[in-house]
Amino acid sequence: MSYRNPVPTVDAIMQKDSKILMIKRKKEPFAGCLALPGGFVNEGETAEDAAKREVMEETSLEIDPIEILGVYSDPARDPRRQTLSVVFVAIVIGGNERAGDDAAGLEWVELADVEKMKNRIAFDHARILADYRNWKTSAGTFWSTKRRTQND
Amino acid sequence: MSYRNPVPTVDAIMQKDSKILMIKRKKEPFAGCLALPGGFVNEGETAEDAAKREVMEETSLEIDPIEILGVYSDPARDPRRQTLSVVFVAIVIGGNERAGDDAAGLEWVELADVEKMKNRIAFDHARILADYRNWKTSAGTFWSTKRRTQND
Repeated sequence: MSYRNPVPTVDAIMQKDSKILMIKRKKEPFAGCLALPGGFVNEGETAEDAAKREVMEETSLEIDPIEILGVYSDPARDPRRQTLSVVFVAIVIGGNERAGDDAAGLEWVELADVEKMKNRIAFDHARILADYRNWKTSAGTFWSTKRRTQND
Repeated sequence: MSYRNPVPTVDAIMQKDSKILMIKRKKEPFAGCLALPGGFVNEGETAEDAAKREVMEETSLEIDPIEILGVYSDPARDPRRQTLSVVFVAIVIGGNERAGDDAAGLEWVELADVEKMKNRIAFDHARILADYRNWKTSAGTFWSTKRRTQND
């Protein structure tokens, strides 16, 4: 018997003052939209190493993951194929930022503006950043269908 | 170009008093060893739904995930093929425990005894349960290569 499984991915949240580092996507889906830096976990690397590699490829920055915000695996989160994304919170420890690989450009986005920009934000990354704002005060972790409020 | 990726899995930690629910594995690898209930995430389900389904199949218990302990993705953690496991902490909300599917039996294991039983424990589940003991006091999350101490 053969089963199909979601593909594991990683995304990284880097904050500077009140802003979050996002990439402008070069390719479909969501070409031209903003997304967190990230990508697929390759065989032979850990999720945390994949996060470091993807951020380096897309932004030329060296990072250190300091926490896991949560795991997002809603089957509809990527229109191509189901992904399961481990979202790390990371700090920049080196490098000079420069867009590369799948990134057409880089943008530091005001975290407080994400909600009103959400039509320009790829995948479920607006939701992830809303969770990140909560996490900064609660230190909880999140998953796609976790109850956000008593009434969810 | 085609890349190979790790396969996403889930494991679940259920505690009753000072004990953790583990299954005795029916199949290789680690046949006869103890493991946390869990398994592969299928396409079309979230990680949290996979945890509920796997625990139901292996123990006949209905669970509700309440937290993510961490994400474990060391390429060597499974001898068959690289897995990336999301480990949920869960509470039992229904069912009558009975071993099923890949479980030859069920065993409630004293959390404090895990360290000395580690030769009988499959995969990196002794490490996961050591992290769980820390988590209960720190509420942090963990990944395969996270620094455990200043000297790691």
